[in-house]
Amino acid sequence: MTKRREKIDFPVSQVRRYLEPGPIVLVSSRWKGKANIMTMGWHMVIGEEPSLIGCYVWDANHSFGMIRKSRECVINVPTVEIATTVVGIGNCSGRDVDKFAKFKLTASRGEKVGAPMINECYANFECRLVDSNLIDNYSLFVLEVVKAHVAKLPRFPKTLHYRGDGLFMISGPTVSRYRRLFKPEHL
Amino acid sequence: MTKRREKIDFPVSQVRRYLEPGPIVLVSSRWKGKANIMTMGWHMVIGEEPSLIGCYVWDANHSFGMIRKSRECVINVPTVEIATTVVGIGNCSGRDVDKFAKFKLTASRGEKVGAPMINECYANFECRLVDSNLIDNYSLFVLEVVKAHVAKLPRFPKTLHYRGDGLFMISGPTVSRYRRLFKPEHL
Repeated sequence: MTKRREKIDFPVSQVRRYLEPGPIVLVSSRWKGKANIMTMGWHMVIGEEPSLIGCYVWDANHSFGMIRKSRECVINVPTVEIATTVVGIGNCSGRDVDKFAKFKLTASRGEKVGAPMINECYANFECRLVDSNLIDNYSLFVLEVVKAHVAKLPRFPKTLHYRGDGLFMISGPTVSRYRRLFKPEHL
Repeated sequence: MTKRREKIDFPVSQVRRYLEPGPIVLVSSRWKGKANIMTMGWHMVIGEEPSLIGCYVWDANHSFGMIRKSRECVINVPTVEIATTVVGIGNCSGRDVDKFAKFKLTASRGEKVGAPMINECYANFECRLVDSNLIDNYSLFVLEVVKAHVAKLPRFPKTLHYRGDGLFMISGPTVSRYRRLFKPEHL
């Protein structure tokens, strides 16, 4: 049983604070009344205003068509407490199972998109597909974060970072000791 | 004084092992006889064979034109030991200074590209720009890793992961305890 989390609104222009460090994320989607979840390790920030994220979704994934057709999804940031769930989600297919039911996850309703948010995750970023032109060549979905929800605590979540071959790096401490070396305009 | 590192050849199809966890990297380039280095936090793996990386390079960066024109660069993975150098490199411009000289870094010759490799980094990935069509719209450079060099030790480097606002997450432990949950074909 994983705990549910209270969330607060977070500025969409600052989702890089959680995505730029490179965590594995869970992408949830809904199409024709069915919800699904996939794990994703290949993503990057490509803009702050608008808040753009590039995501690689393999065309063999059941979520591929669901996101492409609904033009929406939620990027959820899980923490180490639900690592076994994260791996389980990546090792079965939405073609065969209802992942929300199988993994006992709570679907919360988003404000801007119809795709469900995973309550048990640290952060939920509601996204719209704003450019589908790179999908055919690169499986690359350009998403805009239109609403962001982040847990109040802890300030810095313990996230999972995939190394391939079944190995995860778990995020270590966040340090401010290099901050004095930045020019103010670079902060 | 930072130590130099002995490197071994590494399969280009597996550079995700070091890039997918999301470290800050240093990108080195050379154009018209001058070398430069930039820090980069916005990058992602977009393919294994060929080994493709998507990189966001802001057009205000001096390196932007150097990489675009030379169609080459090296992605170098620094570790926490040279964190002050990494931040220093991100807070000055190649228009004003020779960063290899200023930060006392050793430029090694690549095998496949003319851009210099930074010896003091844990890994050096020699890259060619294989698609420049996404630069105008997204500042996105599609690079192919054509040769990879990785330090023999440690197996898992302590990397820096940028959170914005001058804060870095330092990579924590790498764990194998979830590996048994993977289907063999997903490893």
